[in-house]
Amino acid sequence: MNIPAANEGPLVIAVDSSTTSSKAIIVDVEGNVLALGKREIPLRTPQQGFGEHNPAHWWETTNAAIAQAINSLPMQDRGRIAAIGLTHQRETFAPFTEDGTPLRNGILWLDIRAADQIKRYGTPEIHQLSGKPADVTPAIYKMAWVKEHEGDLWAKADRVVNVHAYLAFCLTGQWVDSVAAADSLGLFDIEKLDYDDSLMEIAGVNRSQMAELFQPGEVLGYVKKEVREGWNISREIPVIAGLGDGQAAGVGAAAVSEDVAYLNMGTAVNAGVTSTTYQFDQVYRMLAGGIPNTYVLEVLQSSGAFLTTWFRRVFGNKALQGGPDPELEALAAARTPGSGGLVTLPYWNAVQSPYWEPIARGAVVGWRGTHGPGSMYRSLLEAISMEMARSLTAMEESTGTKLTTVRAMGGGVRSKLWRQIMTDAIGLPITACKEDEISALGAGVVAMASTGVFGDTEIATAANHMAQFTDETEPNQENHEIYQELGEIQGRLYDNLKDTNDLLHEFARKHPDAEVSNEEE
Amino acid sequence: MNIPAANEGPLVIAVDSSTTSSKAIIVDVEGNVLALGKREIPLRTPQQGFGEHNPAHWWETTNAAIAQAINSLPMQDRGRIAAIGLTHQRETFAPFTEDGTPLRNGILWLDIRAADQIKRYGTPEIHQLSGKPADVTPAIYKMAWVKEHEGDLWAKADRVVNVHAYLAFCLTGQWVDSVAAADSLGLFDIEKLDYDDSLMEIAGVNRSQMAELFQPGEVLGYVKKEVREGWNISREIPVIAGLGDGQAAGVGAAAVSEDVAYLNMGTAVNAGVTSTTYQFDQVYRMLAGGIPNTYVLEVLQSSGAFLTTWFRRVFGNKALQGGPDPELEALAAARTPGSGGLVTLPYWNAVQSPYWEPIARGAVVGWRGTHGPGSMYRSLLEAISMEMARSLTAMEESTGTKLTTVRAMGGGVRSKLWRQIMTDAIGLPITACKEDEISALGAGVVAMASTGVFGDTEIATAANHMAQFTDETEPNQENHEIYQELGEIQGRLYDNLKDTNDLLHEFARKHPDAEVSNEEE
Repeated sequence: MNIPAANEGPLVIAVDSSTTSSKAIIVDVEGNVLALGKREIPLRTPQQGFGEHNPAHWWETTNAAIAQAINSLPMQDRGRIAAIGLTHQRETFAPFTEDGTPLRNGILWLDIRAADQIKRYGTPEIHQLSGKPADVTPAIYKMAWVKEHEGDLWAKADRVVNVHAYLAFCLTGQWVDSVAAADSLGLFDIEKLDYDDSLMEIAGVNRSQMAELFQPGEVLGYVKKEVREGWNISREIPVIAGLGDGQAAGVGAAAVSEDVAYLNMGTAVNAGVTSTTYQFDQVYRMLAGGIPNTYVLEVLQSSGAFLTTWFRRVFGNKALQGGPDPELEALAAARTPGSGGLVTLPYWNAVQSPYWEPIARGAVVGWRGTHGPGSMYRSLLEAISMEMARSLTAMEESTGTKLTTVRAMGGGVRSKLWRQIMTDAIGLPITACKEDEISALGAGVVAMASTGVFGDTEIATAANHMAQFTDETEPNQENHEIYQELGEIQGRLYDNLKDTNDLLHEFARKHPDAEVSNEEE
Repeated sequence: MNIPAANEGPLVIAVDSSTTSSKAIIVDVEGNVLALGKREIPLRTPQQGFGEHNPAHWWETTNAAIAQAINSLPMQDRGRIAAIGLTHQRETFAPFTEDGTPLRNGILWLDIRAADQIKRYGTPEIHQLSGKPADVTPAIYKMAWVKEHEGDLWAKADRVVNVHAYLAFCLTGQWVDSVAAADSLGLFDIEKLDYDDSLMEIAGVNRSQMAELFQPGEVLGYVKKEVREGWNISREIPVIAGLGDGQAAGVGAAAVSEDVAYLNMGTAVNAGVTSTTYQFDQVYRMLAGGIPNTYVLEVLQSSGAFLTTWFRRVFGNKALQGGPDPELEALAAARTPGSGGLVTLPYWNAVQSPYWEPIARGAVVGWRGTHGPGSMYRSLLEAISMEMARSLTAMEESTGTKLTTVRAMGGGVRSKLWRQIMTDAIGLPITACKEDEISALGAGVVAMASTGVFGDTEIATAANHMAQFTDETEPNQENHEIYQELGEIQGRLYDNLKDTNDLLHEFARKHPDAEVSNEEE
């Protein structure tokens, strides 16, 4: 089979519409990013804990980002554009009329308004059925909130869809969606990869309001002429059914087999593996995979780089405004693992894997006068890393498949110290991905696969051709053993502090206070 | 009765030989300090955790400090000097030959070498008998260490005494001591206020090696002529049996009845009340009182201002080098009590009252992204204060006497915020003492009482005449209730974290680390 050279083969546009912005990249067959466009999306917080977007912004920013990327591509290459792939911020949704008019703001994955609904409907059975533990992110609970608080709205809504489906509508004029995007609403029977009536009933929606489902990689339709003309593109461009940004990151890292994990060291930290069969365990959530008829098992911690940024903002060098701090990193690097007996429960943003408890809180335990900022900063990095190691081990035990490879992405990879601690905690080499816009690259892989340029249309084939890596970090066996020892101590802390957490939650409701605003997170 | 005017009545010299220095003040009948002398004592740390003084320095620094104070007193007033009173760093001891030659360095109260001996001998029965919980401070365990590690030394020692007794020897030439000073060695049957044979056997010493005991306020002897001549004093000066620095602070604050507590907000925080009968409870230690045939019940936390200084040094404005930081204080003052659900166990230097567990460690629990340095600093202040409030309540329950008054001294009193939090936590007004050298003033009160200038020789009478106060802080009832609520959460944390503490102690033994040195503490 002849794969064309990078400078001659097809190009794809890949869109990642995320919480903060919509980005568009143009990618070649080797996974090189030739052009980038980006537009910010303003976050709206009408009440504390609420998080909304104007859905019109999803399309306006995507359209503008695509135009920007195309405009920065040399004229002679524009004709090579063969497809558009999409990925999106998961779980976010909005109601529309049939012609695409939004009926209210979109409610975001990070919106925590539905605490009561989670308590009422969020059973272990829902975790088993939908693959999603009862937690703040799935849309189902927020849809139930709309049903209860904005009664006639659901009756007026012709469509209730996620960001991916709305972008597909704006691009093609059809209400179409990808299985690997729609699933994150939490309305799927995950084993069947289709909407479930009992879940839709909780949400207050029905099947006729949902978009038509396609497998990732299938053609959803073609870009409308008036849209294409806005980009100065004359050729027909198919819109390819995409996937959620988490799964997209895994595809962008070519983590497409059961023994290879992707590890996103971002504001939140998450990691996942592919599974070809239905699995259930408390530690992970199950998502529709980016490869048709597969699943992704994903472990999640919302307090990832969030925590290190928080520490640098509130305790670090003020002049750096939370940015990387080589001096602090050096202080932390000079400590021995465990900093002489300091251990952290990193639940600043509650706990997801494995307890999924929205009222959990962080703890730093073991203080002596010999500790300082380097010890605390290191303890935060260790805490996130040991939690991840424990979650991956629990996932291995659940699936029966040992991991052989971990591929990391996200801002945390750029911290040499954190990457080494993560490697030592997990005890496996960690390979760093080259591309920063790894979710967009994953959508590009799916789109490129659809062109058949690699001889078949398998997404795994395209991923292995297009994923690019930089260096690998090797685990230090001695430190790995220390982290297993410390990890056992850390692993007991949640139970030890359960009562205290509950009491502090009640206390904070009665006596609220906030020194630091984290709206930008 | 006519009490002479301050500028005409007798003066006393009062010495406080402490961990860091020997201080001498000259005090009049109103408690005014007319002159001060001070000499530093170098701390020796031959091994990690060891703390020693050369005993010769105790006398040399005391002698020089007295000479300095006398020299700064106007010549015409020197003839008014009527007595010398003594107070000292408690629990510290050294062995001597009969002529006063030290046989080894003195071993200090803060020396933690005797962990094994504490574990072996430190029973609840010893707490009941000696009044002292098994902990690092009492000399008995360190004497047992000397017995085991420096075998023939005890046989060679004619005398094994504390700082007060050694100073009395150097001043008078006699091996004499005060009941309220010797008791802190931990060798007393506290109810009888006399050495106990079974305790001396554990320590490896015998009664003939002890100094002769006098009641506080009694004349121990007279200053030797050659010593007096070094000060250019011709008149005979009696040396008055003194007391430990903790009890002396209480006398200096005129906390001489059962319903009045002294509260020392220093590096360590302690508080005490007088008792006329033997009492026992886990929460306090029992000491020979500064008033003859009374006791002092004292609660203790080693992590007092130590913690606030530590925070400012490691997390604060570097330019201030751990000194007071009005900006940080303002940040903390702007928080609501409890900072929205952050609670601290302040055991950075282990826990004393009420658990007396030398391997305990600190914890900060309840972290959310809304917390910052002001929240943590406030949480430390609240933690120390709520612990103290709980200890005082336990003491009230044990003695059956309600406190009516709290009199505070020490550096922490100068923090408006900390004093208010302490007042709110305890729920009683706190009166601030005027004199900084409050322990020395207490020794001065005992010496002045012995002159009979107030009509009798009662120490309580003299204390009420000489104690001076500045302002009073009133509790805010609403905040008091919040601290009771948060204090209950805090009060459960030690049990919740017991396992973790034990495991971290073992972990830290195997994997030691120290980012920050606290030698100056």
